[in-house]
Amino acid sequence: MNEHTRFMEMAYQEALRARDEGEVPVGAVIVRDRQVIGRGYNRIEALSDATAHAEIIAISAASSTAASWRLEGCSLYVTLEPCLMCLGAIMQARLEAVIFGATDPRYGAVVSHIYRNEIEEAYHRFPSVTPDVLADDCSRLLKHFFSDLRKKN
Amino acid sequence: MNEHTRFMEMAYQEALRARDEGEVPVGAVIVRDRQVIGRGYNRIEALSDATAHAEIIAISAASSTAASWRLEGCSLYVTLEPCLMCLGAIMQARLEAVIFGATDPRYGAVVSHIYRNEIEEAYHRFPSVTPDVLADDCSRLLKHFFSDLRKKN
Repeated sequence: MNEHTRFMEMAYQEALRARDEGEVPVGAVIVRDRQVIGRGYNRIEALSDATAHAEIIAISAASSTAASWRLEGCSLYVTLEPCLMCLGAIMQARLEAVIFGATDPRYGAVVSHIYRNEIEEAYHRFPSVTPDVLADDCSRLLKHFFSDLRKKN
Repeated sequence: MNEHTRFMEMAYQEALRARDEGEVPVGAVIVRDRQVIGRGYNRIEALSDATAHAEIIAISAASSTAASWRLEGCSLYVTLEPCLMCLGAIMQARLEAVIFGATDPRYGAVVSHIYRNEIEEAYHRFPSVTPDVLADDCSRLLKHFFSDLRKKN
């Protein structure tokens, strides 16, 4: 198993925790020097907070571990392509790389919608992006969640 | 004093709290039915967290008051034009209106950089935007902060 797959597996485990709590199953981990320094999963409903995405929670946790808001040299692994808010948080926290699982054609802000030119103009940088790591597993988890939700309603 | 000015004064008071704690002075309040339901000020250094912008903290606080992550019908007043992360949070939380003080030519994501077309394509909406409310006061506060910081270093 290569390194990307190994850390995405950990993000996937976080996504399972979200699912088990009835949240849209998205999970994230932040890695520095091959060590996980922060984890998070979607907790929008539990916290009644639209900002409680897996990525934001993982960034807060990693910053706490690092005792710094600057996460240079860190990589974010997340099971779903980040939205605009999370991409903005990635820029603010100066994360170096984003590795994601499933693509989000509607809200995805990293490859699905093209905010990149404006971002590079503002910040003079953009993280490296690796899509499609364990994409089938990450995507299937989301599809089953929404399919089960529809059955309940 | 009109309503926008009155609520921006409250956001400005939040910005003063940030300044008094040595943080970049930005403050925000969230208003529903002419009542403030959430407040926040920049706490990046205190919390060692790049996501601790005034807007994010105010959104979390308002969501807690409303006991819902959906902040439809709410307006955000903030002393500085929101960045990309905060604009993303505004979209996620479904805020209706953004009223800001000083423009941020570098990182501002509401009028200074044009993310709007892509956002409307993804979300099929965009908040109403009112710039330049108490802009001189909000801008002066930031300028003094950075000027004092340079003197110390």
